[in-house]
Parts: sequence; C-alpha cells; structure tokens
Amino acid sequence: MSGAEPRPFCAAIDWGTTNMRLWLLGRKGTVIARRASGEGMRACMPDRFEAVMEAHLTAAGAPDDLPVIVSGMAGARGGWAEAPYLDAPADLRDLGRNALRVPSARRDVRILPGVCQRMAGREDVMRGEETQLAGAVAAGTVAGLFCLPGTHSKWARLEEGRLTGFTTFMTGELYALMRQHSILRDTLGEGDADPGHPAFGNAVDEMLSEGAVTAALFSLRAAALLSGTGAEELRARLSGLLLGSEIAAAVSQERPEEVQLVSAGGQAWLYETAFAAAGIASRTLDGAELVRRGLFDAACILWPERMAP
Amino acid sequence: MSGAEPRPFCAAIDWGTTNMRLWLLGRKGTVIARRASGEGMRACMPDRFEAVMEAHLTAAGAPDDLPVIVSGMAGARGGWAEAPYLDAPADLRDLGRNALRVPSARRDVRILPGVCQRMAGREDVMRGEETQLAGAVAAGTVAGLFCLPGTHSKWARLEEGRLTGFTTFMTGELYALMRQHSILRDTLGEGDADPGHPAFGNAVDEMLSEGAVTAALFSLRAAALLSGTGAEELRARLSGLLLGSEIAAAVSQERPEEVQLVSAGGQAWLYETAFAAAGIASRTLDGAELVRRGLFDAACILWPERMAP
Repeated sequence: MSGAEPRPFCAAIDWGTTNMRLWLLGRKGTVIARRASGEGMRACMPDRFEAVMEAHLTAAGAPDDLPVIVSGMAGARGGWAEAPYLDAPADLRDLGRNALRVPSARRDVRILPGVCQRMAGREDVMRGEETQLAGAVAAGTVAGLFCLPGTHSKWARLEEGRLTGFTTFMTGELYALMRQHSILRDTLGEGDADPGHPAFGNAVDEMLSEGAVTAALFSLRAAALLSGTGAEELRARLSGLLLGSEIAAAVSQERPEEVQLVSAGGQAWLYETAFAAAGIASRTLDGAELVRRGLFDAACILWPERMAP
Repeated sequence: MSGAEPRPFCAAIDWGTTNMRLWLLGRKGTVIARRASGEGMRACMPDRFEAVMEAHLTAAGAPDDLPVIVSGMAGARGGWAEAPYLDAPADLRDLGRNALRVPSARRDVRILPGVCQRMAGREDVMRGEETQLAGAVAAGTVAGLFCLPGTHSKWARLEEGRLTGFTTFMTGELYALMRQHSILRDTLGEGDADPGHPAFGNAVDEMLSEGAVTAALFSLRAAALLSGTGAEELRARLSGLLLGSEIAAAVSQERPEEVQLVSAGGQAWLYETAFAAAGIASRTLDGAELVRRGLFDAACILWPERMAP
C-alpha cells in the first residue's frame, strides 16, 4: 500500500468452505485493497486460519493493529472459532453485536454468527448468507424473498430487516451427484448446462406445473436409450428439472412479486433464465458486494470510535 | 436330476443386472429345480451368457434339448442379444409372441422384450418388471396400480391385462448416493433404515402433505448440527422422505383403492410401513413368484406342442 492511499478502517473477510476473500475497507466502505484465494475453511483446518489471514493482510499492506471482521464457515464448529448461531427470526442488524471475538488472535478479530432455524423437521442453518442478507438490508432492501443459489441453495424471507425463515435446497449437490456418481453419469457427458437450450426452460415449466423431480430424473436415461437424445440437451434438462423443482417448492406457499437473486456469472444466467421460464420477476444482486456491505455494516457497529475522522 | 422327477417343460431365467435366477419348470409350472447366482448381466458381458446358462442348466440336470425362456437385462443393448422393447400401452399377454430367439445359441433360447414409453418428457423403459406384471395378469390380477421398488422403482398401471403407462423413480439410487457420496454421508452413519422408527412414518406423512423432498434433505444435516439427532433417526427420516416423495408423486393423479406391492423381505417392510403411514391399502406380491409365472405363461404360448401329455 502506497502512502497516498487512505488509512483503512478495517479488514473484512468472507471465509467460505473452499474460498476466502479479503478486503481492506475505508471509513465509507470503499475498497482500498482486495485479496482472494482458495484457502477456504477446509484448507485452513485445524489451525492455519490466523497464519493465512496474516499473510493476506501483510500482502494487502494492512497495519498491525487493524481490526478484522469475518463471516462464513470460519465460524463453524471445527473452523477457527465457533460463533454460535442466532435463532431465526433474527434481526440482521444484530450480527455485529453478536460477533465472537477470537480469543487466541493477536489482533482484534470478530467472527459474525450464522443463523439457525430450530423448528422440528424444518431445521436449517446458514453461515455467510446472513451477512449477504445484512448487506441487502444495509443497502435498503429490508423485505422480500431472496434466492441465494449454490451447492446448497438458500431461500430466505426478510421482513423489516429481519430474517423470518429460510430453506436450504441441495440443488447444486444433487446436480453434481447426478453428474459424477449416478446411472446418468455417462449419459450426461462433459460440460456445463446451457440455459439457452429449449430443454432447460421446458424442464423448469414441467417442475412448476407438476413438481415431482424424482419421477423425472430417470427419463433422461430413457430418452438417451430410446431416442438417442444428446448429452447437451440432457444436461440442460437435468439442470432445468433441479432448478425448477427448487423454485416450485420455494414459491409454493406464496407467489412472490419479485425474487431477489443473489448470484453472478453463469449461475446467475441459469437462475435468471429459470425465473423467466417460470414467469417470476427477479432482480440480480452481486453476492460479493452484498457480503462486503454486510461486513462493513457490522464493523461500523463494533468499532464506532474508528469512524471518527 | 433323478429319474423319479418329472421331465421339465422348459427352463426359465430371470436375468438381471447383478443377479440371475433359473428354474426348471414342469408342464403345470411346478418348480423341478432352481439355481441362483451373482452372474448377472454385468458379470456376463460381453460373451459369457451362454456358458453361464449352460453351466447352470447342467448343474440343474436339464436335458440338452430343453428350451429356455429369459427375461430381464440379458435382452438389453450390450447384453446377450437385444430384444426390442414393446411400446406402452402393451398387452402383457403378448410378451411370448414378441420374444427374440438368440441366433447364436445352441439350444432354443428366447428373450422376452422389455417395455418402453416414448412420450416426450415421460420417456421410460423397463426390462424384467414387465414379466413380473405379466405373471400378475396370468394369476388373475389384470388391473390396478403396481409398485415395484428397487434401485429404480417402477410404478405401473394395468388395465385389462395391458400395461398402459409407468414411471421410474430413482429412489434406491438417491438413497445410496446420499449415504455414500453426499454431505449427509458422515451424519447418516452405517446400517439400514428402520421403518419402525417414528421418524420414518413422520417423514412419509410430510412428503404426502407437502412433497418437496429437495427442500427437506438438508434438514437432516441441520438437525444433526443443531440437536445432535442420532444417525439411526436420520436414516429412518431419509428413507421416509424418499419413499414418501415417491408415493406422493405416484398417487398424485389418482388415489388408488389399493396398491399392488411387488416386493419381499426388508424392502417390503419399508414400503408396507410407508403405505400404512400414507393411509393407502397395499397387498404384497412376491416378485420371484411373479416373474416365474410370467416366464411360464410366455413359454406356454411359445411352445404349445410341449404342453401335450
């Protein structure tokens, strides 16, 4: 960091299972420096968290006394230090106040809590997504239905800045299991699913109107056997079935006016196309920006004295 | 075979993917000798089918000119010889007339066709189950909704001896994928699912009333994290979710008065318990007896001259 750059207010880390992102933020949340790496929770277990963080802070030119705010899987059991869950319904402006200070760390490091839902049969947990949602609240979207796709997609309902309930779908994992380990493996070939293929939207429609994904999966194998249907079409259909099934279940209670889609890149394109096929309006928000905003918002609550000029 | 035993009418083979069963049958369908082995289609590919069959026929004491009727995966592409599918709706009394004579075999060997369904998006195939269903028809059950559980469970509708439509559910395969390859793997531990556990019936109920299995799977992981729910309960719940989801989809169009369950042993116990939890009457039929009856029925059509006293 050159002397001309502003003095950072804090460092913020989004520490996931397989990746981590770090920002040095100014007093208004502006990005002074950024780092990204594959040193996620798994790569840092059990005891490399502090060393990895310090290396990235040094490379980013952070002062020795700069405090750090962290969200995500670093706060899980078996991670750096367990930050207990908040129970839903949870006020997303409370994340900072409930942060865990890492006792062993040399500098001031706080890990934000995840959120859990304890209702029997609807048990659920999130770590990281709550900070994205807090970022949306900080940016003014305090209510709505949010879709946060991934290996484990989360659907969350916000009311007046509170996370009132959420559901995790194993959509990404099911897609990977089908591709890698199921009887469909050879049938599906290599390559990504193309949401531009008509089979994608048709499969989404089918799930919205009927909804039994487990009754539809084997049709992929049968279509290949009977009609020689190509792998590209089958991958698009598989993806459409799984996303359609997720969306159908998520909107079954109440059809939303608009879904807030927290996603980017190819994944955003898949979900945007699926929402369009389902006739549901969606607005795409960038997850990296949201988590940075949520981390900054929590830091402002934790260290108000550092906000003074 | 001792001289006191009756001369067999034919040999009948149920040749699946991983197992094969062989019977020598008398003119009234009585069992004169039986063999079973793990030499299914996979073990016999590409060219061991005849040698395996002859070894079992010799061991069973079959005469050199005894004809053989075969059903199942031996007739698949890549199996012994491809027996083309009949198209649904298909008369199950027509299987024998549409059998393929294996051109290379020394003795008279006929492989029964499978049945396929070509409707776009509902493509499906079966090989072996159609012979079980033909056995049910031969035994007098010419109509009804049949459930044939397995790695790939089949649900079939019969009307006046005709197979009018069917759907395959990847229930058993999904259960195995969750147990072996998913994030739930460690959470689920070792051992079978116990349908006697209350979590099993509750999960079936849940799927019958709501139906989104992909929204429920992750709750197993969360329940273990949040409440320390034990592996035995989670296995019962997983099994109940998957069976419940299958049953809910299968009866969504029309609630049957009674389901004909083609199953035996622990698998029958799981499905019987699930049907009871769902408030659906079921009658259990033994699949091995049905397939033998179906094979015998087809043999009677193929070789009427051998029926003469």
